[in-house]
Amino acid sequence: MHENNTLFDDVYMERALELALLGRFTTAPNPNVGCVIVREGKIVGEGYHVRAGEAHAEINALNQAGNEARNATVYVTLEPCCHTGRTPPCTDALIAAAVKRVVVAMPDPNPQVCGRGIYQLRQAGIVVDYIGSTTIKAKAEDINRGFLKRMRTNFPYLQLKMAASLDGRTAMASGESQWITSKEARQDVQNFRAQSDAILSTSATILADNPALTVRHETLATSVQQIYPKHCLRQPTRIIIDSCNRVMPCHRVITEPGSCLLARMTADQQIWPDNVKQLFLPPPEEEKRIDLRLLMMELSRLQINSIWVEAGATLAGALLQIGVVDELILYLAPKFLGDNARGLCVLPGIDKLNQAHNFTLKEVCQIGSDLRLRLTPNP
Amino acid sequence: MHENNTLFDDVYMERALELALLGRFTTAPNPNVGCVIVREGKIVGEGYHVRAGEAHAEINALNQAGNEARNATVYVTLEPCCHTGRTPPCTDALIAAAVKRVVVAMPDPNPQVCGRGIYQLRQAGIVVDYIGSTTIKAKAEDINRGFLKRMRTNFPYLQLKMAASLDGRTAMASGESQWITSKEARQDVQNFRAQSDAILSTSATILADNPALTVRHETLATSVQQIYPKHCLRQPTRIIIDSCNRVMPCHRVITEPGSCLLARMTADQQIWPDNVKQLFLPPPEEEKRIDLRLLMMELSRLQINSIWVEAGATLAGALLQIGVVDELILYLAPKFLGDNARGLCVLPGIDKLNQAHNFTLKEVCQIGSDLRLRLTPNP
Repeated sequence: MHENNTLFDDVYMERALELALLGRFTTAPNPNVGCVIVREGKIVGEGYHVRAGEAHAEINALNQAGNEARNATVYVTLEPCCHTGRTPPCTDALIAAAVKRVVVAMPDPNPQVCGRGIYQLRQAGIVVDYIGSTTIKAKAEDINRGFLKRMRTNFPYLQLKMAASLDGRTAMASGESQWITSKEARQDVQNFRAQSDAILSTSATILADNPALTVRHETLATSVQQIYPKHCLRQPTRIIIDSCNRVMPCHRVITEPGSCLLARMTADQQIWPDNVKQLFLPPPEEEKRIDLRLLMMELSRLQINSIWVEAGATLAGALLQIGVVDELILYLAPKFLGDNARGLCVLPGIDKLNQAHNFTLKEVCQIGSDLRLRLTPNP
Repeated sequence: MHENNTLFDDVYMERALELALLGRFTTAPNPNVGCVIVREGKIVGEGYHVRAGEAHAEINALNQAGNEARNATVYVTLEPCCHTGRTPPCTDALIAAAVKRVVVAMPDPNPQVCGRGIYQLRQAGIVVDYIGSTTIKAKAEDINRGFLKRMRTNFPYLQLKMAASLDGRTAMASGESQWITSKEARQDVQNFRAQSDAILSTSATILADNPALTVRHETLATSVQQIYPKHCLRQPTRIIIDSCNRVMPCHRVITEPGSCLLARMTADQQIWPDNVKQLFLPPPEEEKRIDLRLLMMELSRLQINSIWVEAGATLAGALLQIGVVDELILYLAPKFLGDNARGLCVLPGIDKLNQAHNFTLKEVCQIGSDLRLRLTPNP
């Protein structure tokens, strides 16, 4: 009766996507996945992946469904895994539960899965369908931008955060910059930090401002606090580009809770606490700076899916110029600082208009008194 | 029966405001006014002011109503005039038509009217009411921002148009700047120009780009063309600040159709065509530049209600610093030009963050690929 009823596929998959999003602060380096199990028009199990090393979404939903999973339809936002990682394969559990049909929002590009999950289910006689709606497919992509980019390219998903006045200035000539943007904009940044695997900055920023670069639970939006309680707080890894070994053990990126990764060219004589790791990256010939592309590949290898960049005009320009930026998040404060103030982006070698960096505007919204723009660099 | 029926006052006044707006390209230096005459629940006459020297809105509506105006209610967006200008007083016409009630959206701050229009109507036994709705009052203010500001302050309403990249740059270091913004944004500028009494620029801009600074009918929005046919096209006066007499008779601001006003400190030996006037403004002591506040007062005296500024970073900064800007219209193109490119606004003497120029964001919209922001300077 219900077995061919695909009328409500979109509805149940939307619910599975909602569930998946509940894990967005905690699943790293794993993807966000949600699962809904439906039998005879009733939801009999729901689950999502909470934390790497713990049960996957399908297992949580199957546990809730119990015997009701037999002959049921399972909606899952990402192809079920078929390999033994820190937990056993979800395909085995679905087959053992004797579900009738599995609807998947998208295949898992993880080379360890990559279609084999679906193949195994079909081999076991389970009907497997991909969801038809392009909107839902796009949402399924969107909730795992970092994981998907890393799996497909071995580069992390990089969000470049910038903040400036309307005339594109980030600080007075003296360096005075606290605060250009509103309190609301700075709180909004906390929500982005909390969803990122890592925060990238430079020793120049550390020496100038000595920022903590932590997530402060009390400044997260109330809606975020509700699904992300304080005892679950995970600090994104602080990655500091420190070509000249200028970061010291006393800096807040070192002393604050959470881990810190110093990207350097050579070792130093300091004694570093346990939360600090150093990543040594030999510079390319005749260069005095760390190779940023190499750094990105190393960070991907360390299973960092998504990076939130908070740094100055030089790193921002360098990342844009080598083409590793996926998204620009730009806060614009409704003020003019004048042309003696410091510029937003250092782009050496650009002196013709057709060499400009072009973006596509994806979203504009007002945050406090400021504007927030989301843009993607044009190829 | 109908005489105390105020239920539909807002509806008829909204219609009168719609009519008023039809004159927005042509009434200068007069205000935009619309009028609706209602008798026994039916509109018997409608009119709006089209052009200075021609009939006012009330007269056009009374002519349409004819004898039906007797005992009718008249809705008019601005207090009726009571003085003889280029046409006779509207109050006399309303009294002669024996209307019963007049509903007014706002008083006319023109010192020649200023409540006396209402007084005369009441003296003649006509009931006069102000509209209650604050939304409608605000709209009535909005459609005559230029006229109202000039009447109240003897300064014109000044809209500063700027265009930049997201990093606040207007041109490459070489000066290359065509085009930073999209075609759609440049067309949008035409609509603003067409609604302004004058376009203000500088000899620096004229010498650099030799712009026409005209309204090109073919680039106006179709919706504008429909109410503003080509044969009615009025060119805003081009006002060029030319302290050093650098503008020549061959420049396009001189040779294009429409009048041009050169704001200068001294006369020159050129022979100028009839469409050019010169305004001589002695500089303040020890200054080598025209006093911009004095210029604004002179332009107001010349009955210029509204000015659209298209100039460079220096004039923009100077106008902001003396506090004569009413509105900033900022087009932002989604690109970065880098920090060697030219800045948006020269603000000498600003070196602390608390000296920054602050704005309030009134509107954001996307125009082509660009953003358009409307902002008002904070006091």
